[in-house]
Amino acid sequence: MQQTITKDEQVICGQAQELSRLIRSRDWDSVLKLLSSLHKADQAGLVCQLDRDTIREVLSQLSIDELTELINVMRDADVCLFCEAIDPLTLADVLDETNPDFAAHVLRELPLNTVRTVLPALKDAETVAPLLQYKRGTAGGHMTTAFVALAQDMTVDEAIAAVRSEQPRRDTVDTLYVVDARGRLRGVLTLRQLVLARPGSRLRSLMEKQVLSVTPHTPDGECARMIDHYNISSLPVVDDYGHILGIITLRELLHVTQEQATADMYHMVGLSEAERLSRPLRQSVKKRLPWLITSLAMALLSAVVIDRFSETIGVMVALAAFLPLISAQGTNAAVQTGTIFVRSIALGELRRPTMRRAVTREIALGLINGVAIAAISFVVAFAWMRDLWLSQILALAMFLTIALAGVLGATIPLLLRKFKADPALGSSVLLATATDVTGFLFLLGLATILIRTTGA
Amino acid sequence: MQQTITKDEQVICGQAQELSRLIRSRDWDSVLKLLSSLHKADQAGLVCQLDRDTIREVLSQLSIDELTELINVMRDADVCLFCEAIDPLTLADVLDETNPDFAAHVLRELPLNTVRTVLPALKDAETVAPLLQYKRGTAGGHMTTAFVALAQDMTVDEAIAAVRSEQPRRDTVDTLYVVDARGRLRGVLTLRQLVLARPGSRLRSLMEKQVLSVTPHTPDGECARMIDHYNISSLPVVDDYGHILGIITLRELLHVTQEQATADMYHMVGLSEAERLSRPLRQSVKKRLPWLITSLAMALLSAVVIDRFSETIGVMVALAAFLPLISAQGTNAAVQTGTIFVRSIALGELRRPTMRRAVTREIALGLINGVAIAAISFVVAFAWMRDLWLSQILALAMFLTIALAGVLGATIPLLLRKFKADPALGSSVLLATATDVTGFLFLLGLATILIRTTGA
Repeated sequence: MQQTITKDEQVICGQAQELSRLIRSRDWDSVLKLLSSLHKADQAGLVCQLDRDTIREVLSQLSIDELTELINVMRDADVCLFCEAIDPLTLADVLDETNPDFAAHVLRELPLNTVRTVLPALKDAETVAPLLQYKRGTAGGHMTTAFVALAQDMTVDEAIAAVRSEQPRRDTVDTLYVVDARGRLRGVLTLRQLVLARPGSRLRSLMEKQVLSVTPHTPDGECARMIDHYNISSLPVVDDYGHILGIITLRELLHVTQEQATADMYHMVGLSEAERLSRPLRQSVKKRLPWLITSLAMALLSAVVIDRFSETIGVMVALAAFLPLISAQGTNAAVQTGTIFVRSIALGELRRPTMRRAVTREIALGLINGVAIAAISFVVAFAWMRDLWLSQILALAMFLTIALAGVLGATIPLLLRKFKADPALGSSVLLATATDVTGFLFLLGLATILIRTTGA
Repeated sequence: MQQTITKDEQVICGQAQELSRLIRSRDWDSVLKLLSSLHKADQAGLVCQLDRDTIREVLSQLSIDELTELINVMRDADVCLFCEAIDPLTLADVLDETNPDFAAHVLRELPLNTVRTVLPALKDAETVAPLLQYKRGTAGGHMTTAFVALAQDMTVDEAIAAVRSEQPRRDTVDTLYVVDARGRLRGVLTLRQLVLARPGSRLRSLMEKQVLSVTPHTPDGECARMIDHYNISSLPVVDDYGHILGIITLRELLHVTQEQATADMYHMVGLSEAERLSRPLRQSVKKRLPWLITSLAMALLSAVVIDRFSETIGVMVALAAFLPLISAQGTNAAVQTGTIFVRSIALGELRRPTMRRAVTREIALGLINGVAIAAISFVVAFAWMRDLWLSQILALAMFLTIALAGVLGATIPLLLRKFKADPALGSSVLLATATDVTGFLFLLGLATILIRTTGA
């Protein structure tokens, strides 16, 4: 009776193989029968794992209603695949069956010329078009217009009747918004409060008058922070006059949070957040190659530093073996600190009062870890090379590199934020280059000084 | 009338300074007045930014009720700070005022000897203690016991009366669970369905009988995937006999998702997820130093490779300058692929049917990018060094390194998962070492072959 879907990776795998088999034998009846035996969300997942042409064939067998049900439960990454696989006019019919905000959300993901064909074909074009002005990543881009707004002079009975007559989505009905005669947001109340209240009382007297709200341009990360921090289940979006335009729900923010975390991780290593394992290869080459070229250009800086010291290396070839040690330690220390700062900024944990303390803390950590690693490096290098001077140089360079890495790891993300850039953006390559260049300068510079003072 | 909290970082900063000033002048009345003018969540945030001794002093001025309100809205990272700042018996009084699952959640975060003092002092100890068996990161560790279970033979009127008489938390009342006479989960229905139904009908006939459920040991990431995938707002946790033990809510999973994303990012660079900018310095040294030592040990592998070829480097010192180029490109390519795999595994996007395709895709990408970067490297090296052979060696080594990096980036996280290790765990250092060692072997090995065939 109960479906426990915890361990069905193998089942899904089996279903995918069965589906491919049926499709190859072009047995469409059985294909549709297999699909309809599954939860809508699993159907969508299964279909989107097929290759492009097969997706097209399967979708062409489905009715508008079935297509609508599928797109409604599809993950963002799959929506594009879906839209490419059906013709624009069918897509318009499908989007007409969804909420206007969902239609806008889908259109935002599509190439501009598809939008130019689909939008005019929508029955709902007048409602959907204004929503397209709000960008991805803002409250306006994530809000739903399927909320319940009630007049403040309604009685509880009237309000319950009003909720009953509207058919908003399930996840938007638990919080009800109360507006005045001009449509301005005046209060908020939960369905539960309404159910528990005396039938004759007016909403005005029941509602919570302190309402948190955001503008359509508030960043989605900020909305997630507010919903989490103030423990609310949805957040109204209002215009400059206080009119309610839509609401952002906790569920929507679960997506936002996932997407933001992915974006942070990806940006740190120079990937685009649009990159997914399911995307065409050419797109990935286009996105990743420029980054590798940038990183090559930056690594050339380190190469130039080493080349400048080629004479020193020629005298002490053992120095070359120390280069990866310095590079690994500096980069690791800096990327650790950098990751903490990037994540703290994303979670809104790094506010001005804590900032100075946080930076001081990382610098202190760099000094302590620097001393420890320098001591260990000295012992290892001496045991290996049996050269007191060389080991001392490595230890000193190691200490300086790690100490500086703490400073760089903390300040580079903060500086990027200061200049309105994404703090995560490529911070791993920036940090790696900065620590490599400084680390190599320390190591080879100290060695050159030593050679000049002792050797010459 | 409406509070818009979008841009008040400066306000919060000002309040923090004001609070510090009042505390320094020991003006406790004004301190409490300032605090009580704020939203509870802001109070908690502000207090936890103070230093340890001051937190202790401020909290000692608050009543049990005020402390309870604070801990209820506190973020996880701050709960430990809070618990250390009040004495164990007061903490027991506070936890007695919260839900048993919340108390268990707090106790799970505390050191074992604090738990030994607090737990027996709880009035609710018998309810809380069994919850402690469930570990962090599982459904049992995140479930709330404040859910509404209704008998399947109840009428709608009886059910509404039952919901009214219980006082569960607001976020757990929207989905109601229906159980049989033995307490086994039989169905699910929403508060809205209940409100809209005919008063005399029985729950048995209204409820949705297909209920998704998990066991207490289901990983929380899996729960988040299910709630997201199947678009539900809470997930019941049942034991082997089908009795409902608790529920996991969408709100709780917003936290889980945030925490998991943080953990993934941190594990990739060898940080512990418990590390926060607010933690004591000694803890951070203890956690990060072993990691830096591990990475030093691994970097020694690269150093040994270079040292083996010291003769070759002595002949062609320019090779030393190429080392950081090979290292940077290999590491970047591998970490990009690795990040995509780690994140896809975490989001549950990487299931068996897609896996082979994903790996093939990354290998193809490595080959294409490898050819492109090799060509660029050749041109750059030749323009710089004016040495045809050297440039050819760099280009070939670069191609081999990047092509292999794609393979390593895809397979190392998958292998870690296969051996039940965290795919993210230290993958950045593992990948960096693996690509450095192979890259240096390619570069220096090719150079040695060249010298032997031409020079000798």
